[in-house]
Amino acid sequence: MEYLAELQAKGERAKQAARQLANLGTDVKNRALYKMAEALETEKEAILAANAIDLAAGKAKGLSKALIDRLLLNETRIAGMAEGLRQIAQLPDPVGEVIWGTRRPNGLEIRRVRVPLGVIGIIYEARPNVTVDAAGLCLKAGNAVILRGGSEAINSNLCISRIIATAAVQAGVPENAIQLIETTDRQAVNAMLKMNRYLDVIIPRGGAGLIKTVVENSTVPVIETGTGVCHTYVDASADLAMAQAIAINAKVSRPGVCNAMETLLVHRAVAQEFLPPLLDKLIEAGVEIRGCEETMKLHPAVKPATEADWAEEYLDLILAVRVVANIDEALDHIARYGTHHSEAIVTKDYNNARRFQQEVDAAAVYVNASTRFTDGFEFGFGAEIGISTQKLHARGPMGLSELTSIKYVINGNGQIR
Amino acid sequence: MEYLAELQAKGERAKQAARQLANLGTDVKNRALYKMAEALETEKEAILAANAIDLAAGKAKGLSKALIDRLLLNETRIAGMAEGLRQIAQLPDPVGEVIWGTRRPNGLEIRRVRVPLGVIGIIYEARPNVTVDAAGLCLKAGNAVILRGGSEAINSNLCISRIIATAAVQAGVPENAIQLIETTDRQAVNAMLKMNRYLDVIIPRGGAGLIKTVVENSTVPVIETGTGVCHTYVDASADLAMAQAIAINAKVSRPGVCNAMETLLVHRAVAQEFLPPLLDKLIEAGVEIRGCEETMKLHPAVKPATEADWAEEYLDLILAVRVVANIDEALDHIARYGTHHSEAIVTKDYNNARRFQQEVDAAAVYVNASTRFTDGFEFGFGAEIGISTQKLHARGPMGLSELTSIKYVINGNGQIR
Repeated sequence: MEYLAELQAKGERAKQAARQLANLGTDVKNRALYKMAEALETEKEAILAANAIDLAAGKAKGLSKALIDRLLLNETRIAGMAEGLRQIAQLPDPVGEVIWGTRRPNGLEIRRVRVPLGVIGIIYEARPNVTVDAAGLCLKAGNAVILRGGSEAINSNLCISRIIATAAVQAGVPENAIQLIETTDRQAVNAMLKMNRYLDVIIPRGGAGLIKTVVENSTVPVIETGTGVCHTYVDASADLAMAQAIAINAKVSRPGVCNAMETLLVHRAVAQEFLPPLLDKLIEAGVEIRGCEETMKLHPAVKPATEADWAEEYLDLILAVRVVANIDEALDHIARYGTHHSEAIVTKDYNNARRFQQEVDAAAVYVNASTRFTDGFEFGFGAEIGISTQKLHARGPMGLSELTSIKYVINGNGQIR
Repeated sequence: MEYLAELQAKGERAKQAARQLANLGTDVKNRALYKMAEALETEKEAILAANAIDLAAGKAKGLSKALIDRLLLNETRIAGMAEGLRQIAQLPDPVGEVIWGTRRPNGLEIRRVRVPLGVIGIIYEARPNVTVDAAGLCLKAGNAVILRGGSEAINSNLCISRIIATAAVQAGVPENAIQLIETTDRQAVNAMLKMNRYLDVIIPRGGAGLIKTVVENSTVPVIETGTGVCHTYVDASADLAMAQAIAINAKVSRPGVCNAMETLLVHRAVAQEFLPPLLDKLIEAGVEIRGCEETMKLHPAVKPATEADWAEEYLDLILAVRVVANIDEALDHIARYGTHHSEAIVTKDYNNARRFQQEVDAAAVYVNASTRFTDGFEFGFGAEIGISTQKLHARGPMGLSELTSIKYVINGNGQIR
């Protein structure tokens, strides 16, 4: 139960740090972010050495090539992490923004002001760059952060968190604003999920399994991120050249991310004209096609899709394809199998465009564009801590303001009720 | 396990209703609210008869006088519920509001639009009026609602929910938009807390015990409401007449509510002048005083406060009083014992006013006004589903917009990444 003592001590310290962080000047926070970036570059040898230990252990344990790649740090990646921190420094500080205000008939002046959330727990997997990203974003929004990375990356994370936490303190940030859970005991995650006394929110960043565990076991409020079974529906009136470009982009440009298309729905009236040339191109790009019966009749390489395929987030060069009778069938399919992430229609029909955007229940609903745009940078937020697929607090790409809460500040001159 | 079948069936139906509700016109929703109000008044005899059964059972079970009063309905209270629905009809519809929008360099037009949360679970205790309030607010914000009231009020709630649900359907609202859990099996609450598949959020409304149970056991996102250990700090520079009026109002005007003051903090420099006459008046109003040692020296009727008193939400005519050396001691006390609800300073000092509002971490932070103003109606929201004491999604009084989420609606002309 040593992990409990560590968690409790870190929770207590984070809470104290949060109280000071809430009133820290923007200048101090920005200076800290630049110092942290500089320190990562100055101490890159130490980071690479720590990372080498993780890589060796990972290879010895037989981790997959993909996992090893996620774990890997090199000079370019370290420079990328530093650059990320400098970008966060350049974003406007969300804390202190007055979102709304009024003067009541009795003279009370009420303002709704953005404040930090407090203490944020981040639970993530093998990517050590999350340590830097999450710490930078939490700091800029005035929050203390408790990081819990994957055990495969423990040496990298310990080294990185020590470097950035030290640099932050040197710049005037309170001690313990950035803390990493040091134990790799798996029980520590479960204990963290019950730390309502210390944590204001937990954000899991990783695969579907991690997110499910966190959502199902956490009593601390969670922001659910990630899973995207995204659809593109090609309407009867679609510009088919546009639809082809969008479908290829949505599937092929980066299949491993949550905003990539997993299922293509095509109106029956254009299926025969649209699908064969598109499927040729997708197959040429290495995509495996799993289709409904009608799709199978249109191309010899199509494998049969099972019920499970419609609900699957492949995160890979695999695409499910279904021919539908009309927009209603497309809407029903999306309501049934979608994960409320990103959905697109390609159409020239004004009413269908409007209806699709109104009726589809998802974080981002597109007309005539690729689902791949669901991203904090593409939306112009300048940063992203993840993409929320829940409806409470934050939905869609989360930037700095999603890492804040509000408080009401009320000024009177003796009002009583 | 019959309750599981009921919950699942109601969850499934609520989800279907929610899809239709999201696109229901404001006119239909308002017409339904007026019809529901009318039906409550037309069928008041049935409601009173059902309520009489609950009251008789409650008295037989030996429920406290306070609990019986909460349970009690009469013509005035029924008229009050109906009036509440008409007021909700008159509020602007939050759904469809465009909160933000931009055009990106690539031509994509992005709008952030308010949408309903989906399906809301409300878990409450003895007050049957919550059935009406919660149903009305959820409906206006386009949400389906699943209500679970206290078993003491089951007959009243069954009758009321049948009346308003029927009236809503007659006005064009989809079936199953308003549902009440009929079983009084206590296990049903625990099962409801795990219904992530059907419920987008759970809002508990009731005492500290209920809220604790919900927060600790729910895997569905929860909006925590309620507990208020609210402080008033009287600074050395305070206008003492104003401070006296504010203190009396905050404690005495309605001691049983969450925004009432529970602890008074007084700067040592004014304690001797301020406290004796104030305590006289409070005691005259029936308030029991529990004070620190210094307070005890200033008035013979003061009982000694224990450590537990500083953390207690009395919800009664009891007040804890402590003399502090300065604003720092007041801020530390509030940070330690406060529940982040409502806190007030009475002062003429500009810097102390500013510092108090910046440093106190609470939903509402007042200068020179009573904490009793933390209320949706007093803030001008026109309605209130509760007061959130958490930081995620909603904080402070929650009106209709706190019962909504957002979605991003994106219009392009063929953009790919």
